Amino acid sequence: MAAHPAKPLALTLGEPAGIGPDITIAAWLRRRELNLPAFYLLGDEAAIARRAKVLGADIRITSSSAGEADAVFAEALPVVATGAHATAGPGSPDASSAPAALASIRQAVADVREGRASAVVTNPIAKSVLYRAGFRHPGHTEFLAELAAVDGRVPQPVMMLWSPRLAVVPVTIHVSLREALAQLTSELIVSTVRIVAAGLKSRFGIATPRIAISGLNPHAGEDGSLGDEEQTVIAPALETLRNDGIDARGPLPADTMFHEAARNLYDCAVCMYHDQALIPIKTVAFDDAVNVTLGLPFIRTSPDHGTAFDIAGTGKANPASLIAALRLASRMAAATSE
Amino acid sequence: MAAHPAKPLALTLGEPAGIGPDITIAAWLRRRELNLPAFYLLGDEAAIARRAKVLGADIRITSSSAGEADAVFAEALPVVATGAHATAGPGSPDASSAPAALASIRQAVADVREGRASAVVTNPIAKSVLYRAGFRHPGHTEFLAELAAVDGRVPQPVMMLWSPRLAVVPVTIHVSLREALAQLTSELIVSTVRIVAAGLKSRFGIATPRIAISGLNPHAGEDGSLGDEEQTVIAPALETLRNDGIDARGPLPADTMFHEAARNLYDCAVCMYHDQALIPIKTVAFDDAVNVTLGLPFIRTSPDHGTAFDIAGTGKANPASLIAALRLASRMAAATSE
Repeated sequence: MAAHPAKPLALTLGEPAGIGPDITIAAWLRRRELNLPAFYLLGDEAAIARRAKVLGADIRITSSSAGEADAVFAEALPVVATGAHATAGPGSPDASSAPAALASIRQAVADVREGRASAVVTNPIAKSVLYRAGFRHPGHTEFLAELAAVDGRVPQPVMMLWSPRLAVVPVTIHVSLREALAQLTSELIVSTVRIVAAGLKSRFGIATPRIAISGLNPHAGEDGSLGDEEQTVIAPALETLRNDGIDARGPLPADTMFHEAARNLYDCAVCMYHDQALIPIKTVAFDDAVNVTLGLPFIRTSPDHGTAFDIAGTGKANPASLIAALRLASRMAAATSE
Repeated sequence: MAAHPAKPLALTLGEPAGIGPDITIAAWLRRRELNLPAFYLLGDEAAIARRAKVLGADIRITSSSAGEADAVFAEALPVVATGAHATAGPGSPDASSAPAALASIRQAVADVREGRASAVVTNPIAKSVLYRAGFRHPGHTEFLAELAAVDGRVPQPVMMLWSPRLAVVPVTIHVSLREALAQLTSELIVSTVRIVAAGLKSRFGIATPRIAISGLNPHAGEDGSLGDEEQTVIAPALETLRNDGIDARGPLPADTMFHEAARNLYDCAVCMYHDQALIPIKTVAFDDAVNVTLGLPFIRTSPDHGTAFDIAGTGKANPASLIAALRLASRMAAATSE
């Protein structure tokens, strides 16, 4: 039996019209079979009860506090009220969506920072819905970083995609490939890898993380004949990182980094752009990859998928990634407290 | 028992100091166990005999003609003399390397074009060695295209990486990522996919090939918010291709194209740049991917690795990719003659 952290996980509601409620219910129903860590949902009990009815789920839902959640979890899904009511039906976000989603995220961060929860696990939000309601952050992760600010200093959040078979971090993320080339600097690689190394140590219990750094160009530039960023941008970053005492290897040809034998040689692959990182992990771990944010003063994991409005309320949503996110958050909390 | 084509495969020597001789010998030794199609090596019998001795291989090597090779193959490795002698030892290319490698390629093309061989399978060459000897072509494939010219018209060769689990084609290949962005045009996508579709029909026996086309940017540009090449370059190409009657789908987000369930929906993925295509195939088929050239007036396959000078003559070279290349060439020859 896996050791669970002493405090429960705070699970956010996500977009109430998306599949967040569906996969939350599905995960709770498998709590015994999978020995899941205790979690509580920050949301609106009535809204979850309505979704359970739509799904025909045989589930007990109970109003709870964070402190009671652990004791309640075996018998009922604990819902901690945020005070924001969600009226949106499955697949139909409405005016209640943004306030309910945002209140849940704010409360989860408060709970973890004030010691009521061991980690934050977030259900998917719909950025377009939040933008229409005046949300001003580039995304979920940046909002969490803002909430994590101390004395106005916002930490640099780093997105890692994790699976038992492969962990990857893209240095540039949700920008066009052309813009990724423009954004890529030695400084960005250095600050990213430092956060990755620190996170693997403190949150994953890896004493000396082995970090593989990809090249940008085919064959890692083939000694400069296929592009020079390996020499002008990546190699200087590697030198700085090695001087920090970080086990950073590279720049490696990206195409030969991800087969099984190669993956066994490192703990995390840091890649230069989105698809270079996301193609291999989604190829080897499509259903159960977890989105982890490193660099925050608390643990945050998330399923690696969106709100899937088209299947919300149908029972078709796969809870595998949320289950993996709950388990990884629990494992990270245990490693952090050791 | 797999049906073999009536004529043998012409196998080139490749760089004589590389692992070509090693994997040729290793493949021949497994001919019965794996029911390999008959092939003959275009090279220098004495040089192959010397390498066999270095490797301690128990092998009969015999001088042959292309016409006799089929009859000889069960009992001895047939070597058809090119007249160029190779003196280079394992790992040490010398002045004989380039003439021996080039003579072998020229003779293989002549054999297949004049009906003595059913396909060309090429061992790896070392471009740097050839360049020092005055070779002027960008690479192996372009040289084959030159040799395939009719009335001075050089065909556009298209590189496909094939494995039983996934086949991929990069539209831009051995150029920097920055240059790939500059080279990518609707015209290049259209001409490439036309050759892929024709090749899958004529060489693989697929009546209506299903071709998946990737986007360039993360999430295929997310409706233009992460780059516009999907709308300005790729979508117009798809329209032209569909008007041709080609089953071309896309632009698809590259990160979700390559897991097992997604791969089952198409026969070949056409990608915008090298790593987008090579990362997934080398992740799922590292040892046995085959390099196939489409667009030539003959069949050409090749192992998907280089000369590996560091292990030439040591017995460590893995013949899996050459064996896969021989088998695929035989399968393509059978499909072509149907």
